[in-house]
Amino acid sequence: MGSRRDFVQKMTATVLGAPLLYDRTGLKTLTDLPVDGPMLRVAIMGLGSYGTRVAKAMQTCKRAKLVGVISGTPSKIVDWQKTYNIPEKNCYNYEDFDAIKDNPDIDAVYVITPNGLHHSQVIRVAQAGKHAICEKPMAISVKEGEEMVQVCKDAGVMLLVGYRMHFEPNTLKVIHMRKAGEFGKIMFFQGQSGFKIGNPDQWRLNYALSGGGAMMDIGIYAVNGSRYMVGEEPIWVTAQETKTDPIKFREGIDETIQFQFGFPSGAVASCLSTYAFSHNDRFYLNGIKGFAEMQPSTGYGPIKGRTHEGPLTEPIVTHQTLQMDRMAEMILDGKKAEVPLDGEEGVKDLRIIEAIYKAAKKGKKIML
Amino acid sequence: MGSRRDFVQKMTATVLGAPLLYDRTGLKTLTDLPVDGPMLRVAIMGLGSYGTRVAKAMQTCKRAKLVGVISGTPSKIVDWQKTYNIPEKNCYNYEDFDAIKDNPDIDAVYVITPNGLHHSQVIRVAQAGKHAICEKPMAISVKEGEEMVQVCKDAGVMLLVGYRMHFEPNTLKVIHMRKAGEFGKIMFFQGQSGFKIGNPDQWRLNYALSGGGAMMDIGIYAVNGSRYMVGEEPIWVTAQETKTDPIKFREGIDETIQFQFGFPSGAVASCLSTYAFSHNDRFYLNGIKGFAEMQPSTGYGPIKGRTHEGPLTEPIVTHQTLQMDRMAEMILDGKKAEVPLDGEEGVKDLRIIEAIYKAAKKGKKIML
Repeated sequence: MGSRRDFVQKMTATVLGAPLLYDRTGLKTLTDLPVDGPMLRVAIMGLGSYGTRVAKAMQTCKRAKLVGVISGTPSKIVDWQKTYNIPEKNCYNYEDFDAIKDNPDIDAVYVITPNGLHHSQVIRVAQAGKHAICEKPMAISVKEGEEMVQVCKDAGVMLLVGYRMHFEPNTLKVIHMRKAGEFGKIMFFQGQSGFKIGNPDQWRLNYALSGGGAMMDIGIYAVNGSRYMVGEEPIWVTAQETKTDPIKFREGIDETIQFQFGFPSGAVASCLSTYAFSHNDRFYLNGIKGFAEMQPSTGYGPIKGRTHEGPLTEPIVTHQTLQMDRMAEMILDGKKAEVPLDGEEGVKDLRIIEAIYKAAKKGKKIML
Repeated sequence: MGSRRDFVQKMTATVLGAPLLYDRTGLKTLTDLPVDGPMLRVAIMGLGSYGTRVAKAMQTCKRAKLVGVISGTPSKIVDWQKTYNIPEKNCYNYEDFDAIKDNPDIDAVYVITPNGLHHSQVIRVAQAGKHAICEKPMAISVKEGEEMVQVCKDAGVMLLVGYRMHFEPNTLKVIHMRKAGEFGKIMFFQGQSGFKIGNPDQWRLNYALSGGGAMMDIGIYAVNGSRYMVGEEPIWVTAQETKTDPIKFREGIDETIQFQFGFPSGAVASCLSTYAFSHNDRFYLNGIKGFAEMQPSTGYGPIKGRTHEGPLTEPIVTHQTLQMDRMAEMILDGKKAEVPLDGEEGVKDLRIIEAIYKAAKKGKKIML
């Protein structure tokens, strides 16, 4: 209940980059729902299992609507046209989708294809003048990521990366508590991200398409999580790689990597990335005054957890629904800078992942 | 319900070192209580807070009895004599306790003094012909530990180290499940052991008495726990040390160390040892088929946890009561080899701790 003067001071502090009183989404309360406004008209590129999940989630969006598809499989296009009522003129394949530049009914393309294809596809989307949303990791190297950022900038389109946890209410609650000092000085973060991968023939185990193994798929959650949970950027990395099944996990495809970070404040992190076993979906943040434990921490279902104050009880949401509504706000209402998931943020994770691979290979600490 | 022949085959397999069907305590069921038998008559050396805890716990022992004290503080001796009805002839100080060799009413001495004193004190106990129970870490170097083992062997007395978790029912339940294959192939262990240490003047922060910092006090739980939870001996170690308060944590006194192990099977472990912050008392064991999570995992109170099958529900015990009863059985009934906490086991942990310090200092993997 501050005065107008207090309000102006807070707003000024925010603009100047001082710590925000609330989460970077800029919400007054964490449970604020997206308000009505113009709809972001989205085409999905890549109609696999995650693309399907996003399409279903978008059916209850207030600000985003699935209007087009891009796929190499004609039968999938037909199915999606029926299910989501998509007009023929909004359907493309991987050869002809540059023509999307002449389609005024599509605002943005969500690229949900194998990692190794993101670079060229996002660049083509940008060059067609459409905003790009790209699944994570945004690319398979820092070099690729930086090129994507530059091309999108030059084309005047936004590039957002699908870091859905940045919209998840219990995650935001913990980040909010950390910023408010409720955990005290942050000392330690533990991030376990992994599962036992099935079919050995899938693209995730094919280097040309994946650009790596578990680290480039599930491990990135612990990398990104270390940053948003601790609230700092790591300054050093150490890592240890273990491979128990070199037939399934070939050269370049990491099976299990343990990695550690040091942060400027002296906080440290200890993380796991694996494709070898399940029951790995836990974040633990530890400060001088308290802790937060999230388990599961990044799965598609409800994020559960507790802090030293009790259970986390923020509303359960469909992550992808909230993500697409919020991304629509960012793109259409100009909220770009408020949530850390633009192309530059994606490049930061790639830079850390490259350092993890290097640290594991050289067996020594890599400074960032 | 096997035949006699099955029984003999099982026994033979056990003798030959094959996997045991039951925990190494040799209990038929995990909740078997110690049976009556002769009492182990114990003197406690070092009447500090943990000595007091052990003395209280022994009041309900069936097989062990506090009969003597060794202390440098005469007023403490008087207090303990009153509280525990200890005769004058069983009271010693640090100068005269070698005379215990002529005292037929004391069987064993439990050394609960600062780490740096264990070596000389245990050797004097052994040379007085008494069994030695030594708080962990048993010493401050491998060299010291090996000497203690040799002296006790030469003197014909037993040397047991106070690894109380090896008697704790929920811990034994998890070890039993692991041996029975219920977690499948073991892939990962996480051990967090730490707390925020208070008074900067205590012996634990004085190198001459402690031989190190958190690692030599609370970190050893994660070291020993890695071994009994995974059921293998580590073959490599990496470690990263962080110091945020060099005034409180002086040269040689480690504040926070993250360390990692690799095991022959390919399993890995990721551990934390710290004196800088609390809410660190968790073990997590992860196999291909299931998991066990213990939180708290090594604190003095009830050990709680769950596995993929549900909550851990073994009886709650006072750890030190059960420890002293079981140690009495080991000493008086000759069960020495059944629980891994003799001097050789203590040396194994010291060897690993020395490797952790070396790995942290050199910044590279140390092979064991």
